[in-house]
Order: sequence, then C-alpha cells, then structure tokens
Amino acid sequence: MPSHAVQKTWSPLFAVAAEDSFVDFHQCLAEDVKLAMHDIDGSLAHAAMLAHVGVLSDGDLADIERGLDQIRAEIESGRFVWRVELEDVHMNIEDRLTALVGEAGKRLHTARSRNDQIATDLRLYARSQLDGLRGEIDALCGVLLAQAERHADTVMPGFTHLQVAQPVTFGHHLMAYVAMLQRDRARFGEARERLNELPLGAAALAGTGYPIDRQFVAQRLGFRDVSRNSLDAVSDRDYVADICHAGAMLMGHLSRLSEELIFWATPLVGFIEIGDAFCTGSSIMPQKKNPDLAELVRGKAARVMGNHAAVLALMKGQPLAYNKDNQESKRPLIDTLETVRAAVRVFAAMLPTVQAQTDAMRAAADAGYSTATDMADYLVRRGLPFRDAHHVVAAVVRHASTHGKTLASLSLDELHGFSTAFAADVADVLTVDGSVRARDHVGGTAPAQVLRAVADARAALGAA
Amino acid sequence: MPSHAVQKTWSPLFAVAAEDSFVDFHQCLAEDVKLAMHDIDGSLAHAAMLAHVGVLSDGDLADIERGLDQIRAEIESGRFVWRVELEDVHMNIEDRLTALVGEAGKRLHTARSRNDQIATDLRLYARSQLDGLRGEIDALCGVLLAQAERHADTVMPGFTHLQVAQPVTFGHHLMAYVAMLQRDRARFGEARERLNELPLGAAALAGTGYPIDRQFVAQRLGFRDVSRNSLDAVSDRDYVADICHAGAMLMGHLSRLSEELIFWATPLVGFIEIGDAFCTGSSIMPQKKNPDLAELVRGKAARVMGNHAAVLALMKGQPLAYNKDNQESKRPLIDTLETVRAAVRVFAAMLPTVQAQTDAMRAAADAGYSTATDMADYLVRRGLPFRDAHHVVAAVVRHASTHGKTLASLSLDELHGFSTAFAADVADVLTVDGSVRARDHVGGTAPAQVLRAVADARAALGAA
Amino acid sequence: MPSHAVQKTWSPLFAVAAEDSFVDFHQCLAEDVKLAMHDIDGSLAHAAMLAHVGVLSDGDLADIERGLDQIRAEIESGRFVWRVELEDVHMNIEDRLTALVGEAGKRLHTARSRNDQIATDLRLYARSQLDGLRGEIDALCGVLLAQAERHADTVMPGFTHLQVAQPVTFGHHLMAYVAMLQRDRARFGEARERLNELPLGAAALAGTGYPIDRQFVAQRLGFRDVSRNSLDAVSDRDYVADICHAGAMLMGHLSRLSEELIFWATPLVGFIEIGDAFCTGSSIMPQKKNPDLAELVRGKAARVMGNHAAVLALMKGQPLAYNKDNQESKRPLIDTLETVRAAVRVFAAMLPTVQAQTDAMRAAADAGYSTATDMADYLVRRGLPFRDAHHVVAAVVRHASTHGKTLASLSLDELHGFSTAFAADVADVLTVDGSVRARDHVGGTAPAQVLRAVADARAALGAA
Amino acid sequence: MPSHAVQKTWSPLFAVAAEDSFVDFHQCLAEDVKLAMHDIDGSLAHAAMLAHVGVLSDGDLADIERGLDQIRAEIESGRFVWRVELEDVHMNIEDRLTALVGEAGKRLHTARSRNDQIATDLRLYARSQLDGLRGEIDALCGVLLAQAERHADTVMPGFTHLQVAQPVTFGHHLMAYVAMLQRDRARFGEARERLNELPLGAAALAGTGYPIDRQFVAQRLGFRDVSRNSLDAVSDRDYVADICHAGAMLMGHLSRLSEELIFWATPLVGFIEIGDAFCTGSSIMPQKKNPDLAELVRGKAARVMGNHAAVLALMKGQPLAYNKDNQESKRPLIDTLETVRAAVRVFAAMLPTVQAQTDAMRAAADAGYSTATDMADYLVRRGLPFRDAHHVVAAVVRHASTHGKTLASLSLDELHGFSTAFAADVADVLTVDGSVRARDHVGGTAPAQVLRAVADARAALGAA
Repeated sequence: MPSHAVQKTWSPLFAVAAEDSFVDFHQCLAEDVKLAMHDIDGSLAHAAMLAHVGVLSDGDLADIERGLDQIRAEIESGRFVWRVELEDVHMNIEDRLTALVGEAGKRLHTARSRNDQIATDLRLYARSQLDGLRGEIDALCGVLLAQAERHADTVMPGFTHLQVAQPVTFGHHLMAYVAMLQRDRARFGEARERLNELPLGAAALAGTGYPIDRQFVAQRLGFRDVSRNSLDAVSDRDYVADICHAGAMLMGHLSRLSEELIFWATPLVGFIEIGDAFCTGSSIMPQKKNPDLAELVRGKAARVMGNHAAVLALMKGQPLAYNKDNQESKRPLIDTLETVRAAVRVFAAMLPTVQAQTDAMRAAADAGYSTATDMADYLVRRGLPFRDAHHVVAAVVRHASTHGKTLASLSLDELHGFSTAFAADVADVLTVDGSVRARDHVGGTAPAQVLRAVADARAALGAA
Repeated sequence: MPSHAVQKTWSPLFAVAAEDSFVDFHQCLAEDVKLAMHDIDGSLAHAAMLAHVGVLSDGDLADIERGLDQIRAEIESGRFVWRVELEDVHMNIEDRLTALVGEAGKRLHTARSRNDQIATDLRLYARSQLDGLRGEIDALCGVLLAQAERHADTVMPGFTHLQVAQPVTFGHHLMAYVAMLQRDRARFGEARERLNELPLGAAALAGTGYPIDRQFVAQRLGFRDVSRNSLDAVSDRDYVADICHAGAMLMGHLSRLSEELIFWATPLVGFIEIGDAFCTGSSIMPQKKNPDLAELVRGKAARVMGNHAAVLALMKGQPLAYNKDNQESKRPLIDTLETVRAAVRVFAAMLPTVQAQTDAMRAAADAGYSTATDMADYLVRRGLPFRDAHHVVAAVVRHASTHGKTLASLSLDELHGFSTAFAADVADVLTVDGSVRARDHVGGTAPAQVLRAVADARAALGAA
Repeated sequence: MPSHAVQKTWSPLFAVAAEDSFVDFHQCLAEDVKLAMHDIDGSLAHAAMLAHVGVLSDGDLADIERGLDQIRAEIESGRFVWRVELEDVHMNIEDRLTALVGEAGKRLHTARSRNDQIATDLRLYARSQLDGLRGEIDALCGVLLAQAERHADTVMPGFTHLQVAQPVTFGHHLMAYVAMLQRDRARFGEARERLNELPLGAAALAGTGYPIDRQFVAQRLGFRDVSRNSLDAVSDRDYVADICHAGAMLMGHLSRLSEELIFWATPLVGFIEIGDAFCTGSSIMPQKKNPDLAELVRGKAARVMGNHAAVLALMKGQPLAYNKDNQESKRPLIDTLETVRAAVRVFAAMLPTVQAQTDAMRAAADAGYSTATDMADYLVRRGLPFRDAHHVVAAVVRHASTHGKTLASLSLDELHGFSTAFAADVADVLTVDGSVRARDHVGGTAPAQVLRAVADARAALGAA
Repeated sequence: MPSHAVQKTWSPLFAVAAEDSFVDFHQCLAEDVKLAMHDIDGSLAHAAMLAHVGVLSDGDLADIERGLDQIRAEIESGRFVWRVELEDVHMNIEDRLTALVGEAGKRLHTARSRNDQIATDLRLYARSQLDGLRGEIDALCGVLLAQAERHADTVMPGFTHLQVAQPVTFGHHLMAYVAMLQRDRARFGEARERLNELPLGAAALAGTGYPIDRQFVAQRLGFRDVSRNSLDAVSDRDYVADICHAGAMLMGHLSRLSEELIFWATPLVGFIEIGDAFCTGSSIMPQKKNPDLAELVRGKAARVMGNHAAVLALMKGQPLAYNKDNQESKRPLIDTLETVRAAVRVFAAMLPTVQAQTDAMRAAADAGYSTATDMADYLVRRGLPFRDAHHVVAAVVRHASTHGKTLASLSLDELHGFSTAFAADVADVLTVDGSVRARDHVGGTAPAQVLRAVADARAALGAA
C-alpha cells in the first residue's frame, strides 16, 4: 500500500511523507464527518465576508458558494469520498472544492486557519445539538408532569437511607426529578450562551492582517458576539467541559431515577411495572423481564462522567495557544451530546409505560412506622419539647415493633405508659393520608401542593 | 475506654450503643466545624420563624437567641468543646444549647430535620465562600490587566504546538487569561444563583405539618427563593458538583498559565523572572531557584479535578431522598473552595513580581520564521491564491532554513527563484512589529487592540 | 506578623524572603507529620551507610543517631515543635537535629537530596500501611467466611437486574465478596512488591559522586532492590496510582456489598438486620434505624475514586525529573490508605452483627418464578432443544403469572397445554432446594460447593 | 419502518415488541463485532464439552462446528449480516447458526447464559490484545534502548522544576522511560494473569444443573483456572478496570515523554529534531513543523484516564449479580486497548527518527550552574559540613550570576571570598563530563552505568 503522503498536499517544507501508521493515528474522520455541515456553513459565511470587505471577488464567491453547495449535496447523499490522507474535514472539503471550482477554492482559506475554523465548527455543532436537546428535556419534563399530575394523591412511602421514612405522594416524588431537570436545562442554557461567541478571525492564534469584518460573520452565523482574544479563541475548549459537566449532571439525575425504577420494579417491592417494550428477557431464564433501559442509563451516566474527567485532564497544563491535544476534545463532546440526547429521548418514551401499583405503594406506607414523626409532632402540640417527644415516640416504636403492632393499633393505655400527653385524638394523625395532607406548604408533599407545583412547572416550560 | 454511646443521646430505639470504630468512621467534625457559624445563622432564622408563626413562644425564642449567641462566642474564642460522640455540628450545638438554656433548646428542632438543616448550612457556607472568591478573582484580573497594559506592545513569539508561530504581544497573551477568568467568574456566579434557594422546610424529606413560613426564613437568610420540592431539597448536591466544576475549570486555567510561567522561566527560554519570594531553592543544588508556586498550582488543579470526579461518582445512582453517602460531599466542597481561593490569592500576589525579559522575547520572535504567514499574505495581495502562496513560502522557508538564513535576509533574486510576485516591498511585512500591528481587529494582537481590551475588561470588572 | 523567611534557612541565593501566603500555600505539614518516623528511619540508614563507606565519621554517626532518637521520642510524645516556615518534614527534623547535635546534623544531608529522601519516606510509609492493610483484609475475609459457612445452605433469591433470577445460597452470595477481596489482596501485594525499591542514592536526579553503597541502605530498610534509574527514582509516583487503583477497587467491592446490605435491610425486602451499634437514628423521625455505615462506605468509595483521578491527572505530562506538582501526591496516598483501612476494619466489625432473616429469604425465593430455568432444563432432558424449551417455559410463566399461580401449582393438564413433554416428575425440579443442590460444580451454588469454597479460601488465607 | 421486535426471537413472555428507539439505545454491535471470533471460540469449546459429558450428541456437535466455521468465514470475509434487532453478538451468531444447521443450533445454549458467555468473550478478547501489546511494549523498549546506547555519553542538562539542575546523559534520561515501561509491562502481565480464569459454567449467576466439565473448557481455551464463584464470575469487571489502570499508567508515561519531546523540539530549546514523517504542517503558517504525534499521545492519555474513571463509576454500588450497566464496560476496555496499542506502535516508529542535537544539549548544560552541587561536594571533601558547603556555593552562584560569569570562570581569589577551603583543583569538578562520570553507581548517570543498565534491560527483555 502506498504511503498516504498527507503533508505533500499542502507544504513543500516536508522532505518525507507521513508514515501510514501516523496518518491513521492522527486522523479523526469519524468525528469530523459530524462537523461537515457546520464546516460548510462557516466557510460560506467566511467567504461572504471576504467578498464583503473586498478580499475576494464576487466571481470567486459565486464559485465557492456553488462548489460548497454541491459538496453539501454530495455529503448528504453519501456520495462524498472522505480521504483519510487529507487529514481532516477541512482539507477534505477544501480539496474537493478546488477540484470543483479551481482557483477560487484555493482562495477560501485566506485570512483564516484551521485553528479558528475547527473552533467555529465545534461551537456551531454544539449549539445545534444543545438546541435539539432543549426540546427533548422539555418533552421529558412534560412526561414527568403528566405522571405527577396523575399521581398527585397516590401515597407511597418516602425513603431516607432506603428505610421507610414518611409517607409522600408518588406525584411529589416524580416532581423532584422535574426540579433536577430544570436545573439541567439551565446549565445547558448557560453553556450555550457562553459558547455562542465567534472564534473565526483569530486565524492561527494572533488574528490576521486582512481587513476582516468579524461582526458580519457572527451575525450571519447567529453568534451573540465575537471572541475577544485570539489566543484564547483558538485554544479554549471550556465549552466542551461545560457541556460534559451539564451532561454528567443530567445523566446523574437520570441514574438516580433509574436506580429507583429498578428498585420499584423488583418483585420484592413491586411499586411499578415497566412496559414490555422497554424491558428485555434472559437467554436462559424464561421468566425474566429486566429493566435494561434503566440499567443502561445508569451505566451510560458513568460514560459521560468519564468524558468529563477526560476533558479536564486533557486541558490541564496546556500552554497557549492551539496544541494538537485538543483534537481529543471532539470525541467527548460528540459522545456526550449523543448519549445524553438518546437517553433523554428514550426515557421520555419509556416513562409513560410505567404503571404505578398503587395498592402496593399504600400497603408499604401503611406497614412501616412512617407516621412516627406525626406522633411526635402531636406530642409537641400537647406541650412537650420536640426532643422529648422524639424520645417518647422512639420508645413507643420500640414497644410496637417488639410486639409486632402498628402505631395505630396501640391502645391509649399502652400509649399512656410512655406519656400521659396522649389522648384519643392521636389516632387522627397516624394515617398516611392525614400525614401527607398536613404537609401543605410550598415544597411539601400535600396533593394540593403537587398540583400547584405541576402547574408552576408547566407555566415555566411554556414561558421558557 | 468507654463507648461513645452516640445514639443514646437522642433515641431509646437503639438497644446497643455505637461501636467506637463506627463513631470515628462516621464523624466529620473537621468539616463540620467550618459550618458552625452558618448552622447558628440558620437556627436563629428558623427559631425566629417558629416564633413568628406561633409555634415557639417569645420566651423560648429569647432563650434560644441568647444561647446561640453564647455558643457563637465560645466557638469564635476556641472555648467550645466539640464532642465526636455527638456526631455532627448540629447535635453538638443543640446539646450545648440545651445545657445552656434548658427546655427551649429541646424545642429548636421542631419542624426541621438535620436533612434540611445540613442542606441549608452547606448552601450558606458555599454562598459565603463564593462571595469571597468573586472579589479575589477580580483582584487577580486586575493584576493581569496591569501587566497586560504594561506590555501592550512587548513583542514575543506566539506558539502553537510549542513551535514559534507568529509574533504576538505579551499583553495580548496575558489577556487570554483574563478572558478565561471572566468565564470562570460567570460560572461561579451561575452556581451561586442556582444554589441560592432555601431548603429549610423540607424537614426530613416530605415537608412538615407545622404552619411554617418559608419565605420568612429565606428573606432573613438572603435566599432568592425557597426550594420547590422537599425530596429534591434534602437530596440535591448539584451545587457541590457545579462548584467543583467551576473550580476545576479555574484551576485548569491557572494550570495553563503555570505551565507557561514554568516554560518561560527555564533558562533555555528566559522570558521571565519570578520574584524570589515565590520561588524555592534546593536542599542539594545551591544554584536552584524553582518556580514552585506555579508547579503547586498545576498540581492542585489535579486535586480539584479529583474532587469533581468524586462528587459525580458519589451522587450517581443514589435513590431519593437523603442517604448518608451525601456526608462525603462536604470535603470536596470545602477543599475545592479553600484550594481555589488560596490559589487565586497567591497568584495575584505572585504575578506582579514576574519580570518580563523583553529582549529575550523579541530575540526569540525575530529568530524563528514567525512572519512567514505575513509573507504568504503579501503574495495573496499580489494576486496568488492563498493556498499557492502558502506553498511558495513553505519552499522559501525550507531554502532559508537549509542555508541558515532569516526570511528578511533573503535577496530579491533568491525570492524570485520561488515566485516572480515578490517585489522589494516584501521586506516591510517581515518585521515582527509590523506583523503585530497589522492584526488590528477585535481580538487581534495589535497593541491598540490590547489596550482596548484592557479598557473593556476594566469596565466590565467595575460594572460587575 | 513577621515573614516566615523560609528560604533563608538554606540559601543565600535568595534576596527576598518568601511571602507568608506562599509559605502557607506551599506547606503540607499535615501530611508530612505522618511520614516523620519513616523519615527518621531513612536518615538513620543513610547515616549508617555514610559511616560505612567512610564519608561520615563514627563520632558524627553517633551524634546523629542520638539526635534522631531524641527527635523520635519528642514526636512520639507530642513535644516536637513543627514549624511551617521550615517547609517540610525533612527540614524540620534536620533543623532540630542540628540544634541538638551541632555540626554532625549539617553533615547528614551529604549525598542525598530531598528528592530521593521524600521518595524513600513515601515508599516506607506506603509499605508499612500496606502491611497493616493485608492483615485487615484477611480479617474481613475471615468474617465473611464465617458467615458464609453458617449460611452455606440458607436459600435466598439470586438477582440479576435486581429481578429474581434463580435461587442461590446466602453463603454462596457472600463468597462472591471473598473472591473480590482475594483479588484486592493480590492487587495490593503487587503494588507493594513493585514499590519496594530504594530510591535513595538518586540524590537530586542524577545520582551522587560520593562512594555510596545503596544495597547497604536497601538491606537495612528492607527494600527488595535499589531503583535502577535516578531520574525515574525521584519522579516516579506510579505506586501512589497503583495504591489508589487497588484502593478504588476494594472500596468499589465494598460499595457493592454496601448497596446490597442497604437493599436487604429495607423493610420491603427484610433479608437482614444490621446490629444497632452500626446504625444511626434520625433527628426527626423516631422510628428510623439507618444503615449509615454501608452508606458511608459507598460514599467513601467515591472519595477514593476521586483520589485516583487526581493522581492520574497530576502526573500526566510532567517532564522529568522532580517537579513540585508531586507534593500533591501525598494527600491521595495517605487519604486512600487511611480510608481503605478504616473501611475494612469497620466492615469486619459490622458484618458479624448482620442477622440473616432466613424465612424472608426463602419466602422471596419461593414467591418468584426462580426455578423456571430448572423447568426448561427438565424439558431439555426430555429431548427439547434448549431454545425451544426456553420458549415453552416463557409461555408457561406468562400463563401462571396471569392467573396468579406458582409454577409448582400448575396441573399437569395445564402444562400439557404448552408441551406434551411434561410429566409428573416435573414437580421435583421446581423446589428451590433442589435447584440449589443441582448446581454442584466448582463455582456453583450447591451447599457442598460453598463449604468447599470456604475451606479452600481458608487454606489460601493461611498459606498466604 | 417496522418495529425490530427483538424479544420475540426468544420469549413469548413479552406482549409487546421493543420500541425502535430502545433497540437502538440498547445495542452495542460496534463493540460486539470485535468480540465475534472469541464468541465463536468460546461456543466451540462449550459445545465440545457438552458432547464430552454427553449432553450433546456427536452429530449435534458436528453440526455446530460446521455452522460456526462457516459463520467465522462469513465474518472474516465481511459477508455476515449483523442485525441490530438481534441485540448482540451472541444472538446474531446463534440465530445464524440455527438457520444454517437447524435443531443443533438451538441446543448450543444449553447450560450457559449470555451472562457467562459475554464474560468469557471479554476475557478472551482482553487476553489476546494483551498478548499483542506485550510484544509492542518490548519493541518500544528496544527502540529506547538503542537510542540510550547511542547516547550513553551524550551530555545534556538534567532538569528539576524545568530549571537546569545537574548534567545527565541523554541515554540515562531515556532509560528512565525504559524503567517506566518495565513497570507497565508488569502491570499488564498481572492483569492478564488475574483475568485468565474461565467464567463459563457460571450460567446466569448460580451455575447449572448439567454435569458440566469446566476444566475441559478452561484447558481448551487456555485459561489458567476456572472461576471459583458463579455470582462473581458474571458480575466481575475488575479486569476492565485493571487494564484501564495499566493503560492510563502507560499513556501517562508516554505523555511525560511527549511533553519532553515537545519541549526539546521547540526552537528555543532545540535539543532534538523529530522526523518529518511524524510531524504536520499548518494550514496557514508555511514555516510550521509541529510535533503532532507527541501532542496526540499526550491528549490520548486523557482519553484513557477518562475510560478508567468511567469504569470505576460504572461498577460502584452495583448489586450482584449481572446488571445491564456492565454493557458499558465494553467500550472503555476496547478503546483503551486499541488506543494504547496504537500509541505504543507509533511511538516505536517515531523514536528512531528523533535526532539529538548534541551540541545544543551540551551548550545548555555548560551554560547553567549545573555543577554547583559538585562544587559543594568538593567543599565537603575539604571538610565543610554539607549544609555549610551548600550555603557557600549558593553565595558563589549569586555572585557569579550577578557578574554574568560561569562557575569555572571564577578566580581562586574570588572563591576565597566565600570560603578558604577552595583550592586550584576545584576546576576539576566543574566540568559537565566530570560531573556525569562521577555518578558511577547503580542508577547513576555515568556513561558506564547507562551501558550497564541497557545491557541489563536487554537481558530482562530477552528473558521475559
């Protein structure tokens, strides 16, 4: 096999062609292909600007636009031939452009460098993906809101330390994830805002001597502003880390929900059933129906966390300005966005198939001593300091537990053995429904509050 | 040694006292001590609210305020006795309070749980630290701006791939770090805004049946709003991860600057000298003067990155609501904030002692072929397409390099061997000063642009 | 406050004393104190060698030994005054030594540098900790083996995907963790073997011109060999990463066991009760008994993982030889070893208090369709290909599940509706005891195999 | 597009076919394809064992062997049709096998599960890759040894803190990397030894009731032993983490060498030239020749570190036995091995093209005060305590530096101003050659020691 001879295409400075092993090690076309449309968009804006300021003739601009349009069509139809020896997306397109339109193609790279070009491509790619993701997060929130509304008064045990703590409603529980996703959306939004600056014009690292009009390009490509320092513009990959962080957080939240879905779906708990269309079977055990999707999401959270760790380590200690290390920022960016978007979409499809087993939920809430806090609060209302009331009820629970009784089944006589403050009306505070209804303040689990929170979140989604 | 018997202090549910080894494993007083003042602040606001809504008598409130004030004084003066067997900051203070004021102390914990209490403490701590950090970042920016202004026209070689690329000014180079720090400040600001919600009122996980007034507490403690979901409020540690991310980014930026300071300070490069007060010597080599501070910051960047990885792994897959795992979020939060603040402060103290060796910088810029791009741009202005011009100049550089010549020293005859487009005026574009001055657009390295960027950044700092 | 003036103690090269903020940023006495005894051990061996080869007089050696013995006693008794302005453990001890014995103290540092000295200290510290840890892992294995033996035939449901899969014995389940811990022990053993090379003699980075005898020192300090390359010897921190990796793996294993303990202990599952001495209560909910220890271990696993990430990022891209970044390797090393050892010890104390609720375990195994695979295997023995048998049984399970029946309760007539291969003896394969006993091969869950595995593991522990 | 209907292929338990989005999210064929040959190897051994113990007829075995051979040929020739709706490599091959040989194909999965099957595939894959990697590491060591031998007496400045410390030889410097790679090789070797246990026979998680002969399979597949616990066998992914750790360490070492190559290759240092075949140019700056390969390796080190972080987070807190999360262990395993192997190979190809600029190296060693330690040692030999000698020389260096002199150029009179212990023979110790030659002990930088170290390493490579 003949050597790829990559450098020969653009520089006689090199006496020897590149080793094939190096060319293979060096290329990242798998990632670059995903940037191609954005590369073309950037080139079109750059060429238009060069013509606008008189560096490029109108004829050259027309040639370039014609050529790039054809290349876009070739890529979309799968006819474009990617050549690994042309190193990257930029040189593949420029080489093809020159083949198509001649001289004008050779003029396109005036006043820019691949350093500011790839920075522009990556930002355009990231922005486009983030815009898609935003709608998908909203859709997932919508699904959660619908389930939360349906189950605004479905009582289940709330857990701390995976021990039964206090009764909550399933709707309230689901709304906790809406709160997390709202933070996730904000985080991605901030990342988008911060990255939406045009690096083009930084050229290799110092700017360029051509009379460029950076605001022209920024406006055309929808950037909020132009970057303010050329050295920073070509070396900055903060946005990759920001997106990986936001992605790791969102996946972390979905991993928590996944953990719960898996726990709820185990037959020993039996709180939910997940639709068959999102479960898998076993190759050996005929009875198995596994919550694979939730497990995969939990696993893919780790993947995105690894991407974040990689980006941090990648950028650490790099001198300015551009170093080739940065090529390795492409994969974590793309992989994170693709993984997060797929996870959000498939979760939004799966959640409506989750059937709450409301009887099992209520039974579990009833079975524990989940209203012990309500009993202590009762004693406080009867005058005991909270710390003393807490001690009394702990002793009551110990007694009830030893005798296999529920709190509600204890006689007033038995209770008086622990405190004379108990009266007959204590029974009123020991029901799970009463407990839930009592927590009727902003953020509390009372059904009315859940419905209010759903309405607020819907309004926020609509307004956003 | 007698057992610590920790649980006995608050629950007769437990038949057996805690094992000493477990008590030791369990406690985190080293971290908790740093939260003590915020815990007191939170308790004062909580007690005031309880009195406000009538759950606590005015007398009890007065007792609690008196007791907490005394405890605050005891802690500040170092007289407070921390007891590991009381498990955490909350129980240490409540225990002391009850010793000081009796019954009222036992009433303080009404309508709250340690779950929402620690969440409140951590947010108050984080907010306070972030407020301090903000000013420190600004001070560091101020130091960089002063150096950048001083060196707005100091020419040095700009590097890509650590090869000499094009001339830049030292001021422009330093301004790249101002751009990074501005993003860092924004990131911390967003984290602060997001975390500034009051979790108190979530109680254990479900809210409380007492008629609490959460807005009252939020206003008193300076929170923007109250949290909207009690399960989320006690289990959320997003803000720890956000701060670790922002910290890892800032430290990553300082690690890049550190890498450059170390490179510039090596005698083979000799671009700078760092003040003796920020260097160390060697125990064996008498001639050594080491840029330890920069190396430490580079190293501590890794530490903060590890903190971030720890927090992500910590939260992954946790079911709602509070689990004890969360205790491990304290150390990365505190360690990150302390490390970042110290690094920013010491960098701000060190940077003014950095002396640029301007002669060495200029000599290095002159020595390479840093104006080869200017030569290519010259040919473009003479009609060649950029790609052809690039090839011509690459051949010229190869020729010059082989003969040990600079570009400026080549005769017109020699140049005509490569292209007849060269004319005598080519010499004008080959000086480093000319190259730098030509890059006179927003973001470019021209001295005028550097001064403009300094002014803009100063204005932004002032306005922020 | 006067400046610490750290450098003045050892070099007139510096015109200006160190800034206080830098001295504070720079010091790591908290970690260094833990290395003090090893530093003294190393110095004693070094001094003895210097005397052995004639570089130090016998009188000087005697002085040094006397002085270091006194310093050791001062440290042990807490009387030693650590001075932050003396920068590190080495200079603190040397300074005190010179104060105690005069000239001889100034001769101790002959033919060494702090670079090889700290490398020696860290390896001695790590080796000593690993030796302690080894016994602790063995003790934890012993506790697991005792529980496994006790429960060699206690039937519980085995889970995959947290769904009931097939019956296993609790003893077999626990033995899985013995298998993990055996790998952990091997991993730490390999790390110990690899790090057990003496770096002393590498001096600053190049070795020394003194006629040193490195094997003399190695033998005295119990090192297997001397390091073979001085540049590597002072810059290598591989062993820190190896230990963090081994620690992260062990903590990862304990985190898996913790996850299971927490799951088993939730009242909805009820497979175990954990001794009160290792649980905690709630400040608000009187009925709570939380498996805090398991949660803390799960959380601390994240901490150790973060330490590993920090060390990898720390060492990445460091040029040879020693750089100050390495100072940041101390904390992850020490913190990892202390965290891992504490977790292993407290787990070994807690596990014997775990009471298996064998009735609940058996009931759960009976309740699911955990012997469906056995039914499929039965059909295979009756001539069906496995894949067909699997399909038949899946349909049977669907039928049984729809009608709320167990597999054992289905009549032969019902079964014949799915396959005529069923005969009356199918009942024999559907009991959980039969299922467990049938898996009687190496690695299988049959009680006999569990007892054999316990015996093998005991023998391996004894032999190791 | 019709639904993929994946589960229908193996279970009537499911009422609804899988959603397409879930099928896509769920599949990992890109990774699975790389396991195909190992899957076939495992199936052949499993089938042979089943026939050996009488569970499978000889005719069925022959059919299976014929079918699998054909499938192997189809895959090798690229004719095999992978179907995403068949979920994974196992079902794709089984489905095709049944199409080819009928009933026998349905019998292959007897007595195994995909859980032990994938565990077997992954170990076979990893083992095979590690065997390839071992030779590649050896080849890289060979290249380093050749360069080290060539430059056994090439003097260069040794650096600590990137400051000139003491003279070393370039050969000695390169040998530091041989020492690191030897540790890397050991680490991979330990991982290989540990993973070389057969999980097959664990079936889903509990073992199987068939009379299997696990040692038969182990022997046939070259496993050292069979796994000892079925629950551990299907859930263990320790080996993935071990390999990622070893890979991160090796890449970390190459990243350090890369950092140095980049530093040495900058024109301001000029210690080396890297062959054109392993450099790249710039799209804008015609004079650029960039050490891209070294930068890429530095960047890819971050990638492998991210893989390690992902695996640790992935496994943390997973309950036994198999969970779908584990699917995400495939990518980091495969990506790590492929990245490490490619990096080692391309480094071995590049290093021979590195040309040491020995004049520049020597000049730099001469220019600093690199023999100041030798001067201090000289004073020690003249009777001064080392600490005093260190102080004297620090003052001498300060004096020389202020006057722009080298140590060798100072007159005896000048030296006497600092210590009367100086005599005329001090000049002998101030040459870099003398300094290097004096460090003539194991691990020291003397040329004789370098050659000895090269010989030792060669012998070790040959013996290994």
